[in-house]
Amino acid sequence: MTGIGIDIGGTKVAAGVVDQDGGILATDRAPMVKDSHETMLESICTVVDRLLAQGHEKPNAIGIAVPGTVDRDQGIAVSAVNVGWRNLPLVDLLQDRYGLSGVIANDGNAGAWGEYAFGRGKDTQNLVYLTVGTGIGGGIIDAGRVVRGSGAAGEVGHILVNPGGPLCNCGVHGCLESLAAGPGIARRGKQAAAEEPTDIVRRLTDGNIENLTSVTVRDAADEGDPVMQAVRDDTARWLAIGCQICHQLFAPECIVFGGGVMQDGGRLIQDIRNWYQQLAGSPHPNIESFIRLAAESEHSGIVGAAALVLQPER
Amino acid sequence: MTGIGIDIGGTKVAAGVVDQDGGILATDRAPMVKDSHETMLESICTVVDRLLAQGHEKPNAIGIAVPGTVDRDQGIAVSAVNVGWRNLPLVDLLQDRYGLSGVIANDGNAGAWGEYAFGRGKDTQNLVYLTVGTGIGGGIIDAGRVVRGSGAAGEVGHILVNPGGPLCNCGVHGCLESLAAGPGIARRGKQAAAEEPTDIVRRLTDGNIENLTSVTVRDAADEGDPVMQAVRDDTARWLAIGCQICHQLFAPECIVFGGGVMQDGGRLIQDIRNWYQQLAGSPHPNIESFIRLAAESEHSGIVGAAALVLQPER
Repeated sequence: MTGIGIDIGGTKVAAGVVDQDGGILATDRAPMVKDSHETMLESICTVVDRLLAQGHEKPNAIGIAVPGTVDRDQGIAVSAVNVGWRNLPLVDLLQDRYGLSGVIANDGNAGAWGEYAFGRGKDTQNLVYLTVGTGIGGGIIDAGRVVRGSGAAGEVGHILVNPGGPLCNCGVHGCLESLAAGPGIARRGKQAAAEEPTDIVRRLTDGNIENLTSVTVRDAADEGDPVMQAVRDDTARWLAIGCQICHQLFAPECIVFGGGVMQDGGRLIQDIRNWYQQLAGSPHPNIESFIRLAAESEHSGIVGAAALVLQPER
Repeated sequence: MTGIGIDIGGTKVAAGVVDQDGGILATDRAPMVKDSHETMLESICTVVDRLLAQGHEKPNAIGIAVPGTVDRDQGIAVSAVNVGWRNLPLVDLLQDRYGLSGVIANDGNAGAWGEYAFGRGKDTQNLVYLTVGTGIGGGIIDAGRVVRGSGAAGEVGHILVNPGGPLCNCGVHGCLESLAAGPGIARRGKQAAAEEPTDIVRRLTDGNIENLTSVTVRDAADEGDPVMQAVRDDTARWLAIGCQICHQLFAPECIVFGGGVMQDGGRLIQDIRNWYQQLAGSPHPNIESFIRLAAESEHSGIVGAAALVLQPER
């Protein structure tokens, strides 16, 4: 059995054929042409057509991960701001085209399911997944099922951790994403650099603080810049607070961190663990196992989407 | 069909016979004699014996709500600090005595299940339950099931909302309970009264600030004391932050508040709603329905415990 996993992004469509062990048989991608619903559907089908033309074993079903809210039972993308979708019946549209059944999920939930089915949470029944990049997405698995609530559960990025903090697109001042996702890290980095400029940051930003990004913070911290190390430490502290909250509410066996911001040679995850042990009241007896890095790959979105159909929920 | 619901407290055992619609047929209670496991079991059985002696329709099963962590599958009270239990096989012990099957749950989870089965959440499939009293307990229902995680999920009271805040018994500085449960309200009330003494507070405390409790805060705020109204407002703000976090993580249809602190004629719940609308980013379109008061009764613990067996989880 194989499945197609489709990972919808704001600027591109990525898809792949995945086997029942989570192995990737083929992948492809195309730009998302956002002129209309029709051009976006064509962007998706372009990739799927090319995958099918490669002549792998005919896939049994299609899993679709969408950056927004979905109605899983109806197979509808209810709202996806980055692509401008409103109530798009994506599962039906793809079924009409390919004769394959489909499952749709929020991308954070699909990522969580991928980690549960094939990834770093394979040994657990309960996990919290966070992906830290331009935003912070998330998903929760409890007793081998996705926690969905009335639809949009698992929004770990938008929990309020610092009332009165920076305004996020979600409308909240001081949600986790506003502080600890890439742009939030860059904002805090710029503030810190403005107050206490260092030679390392000057060099990495060509002398213009406006060039400072979360990558600058990472690289400067790696080079030993104490100001940017403090910024990284603060990022870790906010994420550790998120872990404490998720631990109290979900009692997960592990918390899995993925996303581009985490790809720094394991420094940020270690700082998160250290802060968690300080903040959590009672230190976790096995913190390395409790707070984990995702088995990161550029194709984890595809695998998560395919996991929706390759390992259906009980 | 009827069930016995047993509500274990730190100082007393309450139990009742409940019918399948959540109606209470009889209740009784006794002090918890905490000399040993044996005396505590006898305290429980004293109440159950008296209920059975009343000659109601023979109950079909026993539900037990425990102030601590449980192993539901094994029927064991794993840890209950207030009564000093460690790995007590309560379901087996009661089954041996009465020949009735049993289900054990954390009292917050039982309360959530009671609200879902018979109470203010009867019209939903997803809810968050908080009980605000001497502590803050909680429980989560998602898709008609209790979110349990690896055992102790739903600890809404111990999420970290104010890092560096007051130390709680849980070991965390600044968890929700440390700020918004009765003792936390009293602590903030004393601080506020020390800084800005008012005639109302002086009168209500007989001139000694050490007499100030959360009831004083409630009564003084009701009489129009602006200092204690600010303390109540702050309580509401902390609880609203808890609501925002739970909304993002669980997407519940409603959040149900019970417990003694909420019994103030509806003022605190209204303040929580107001703060939620300010903090949540996008105001909830139906806030009165979203943030609800529990159908409070002195027997809600009994009904929650009985609900465990009267309406088993799917």
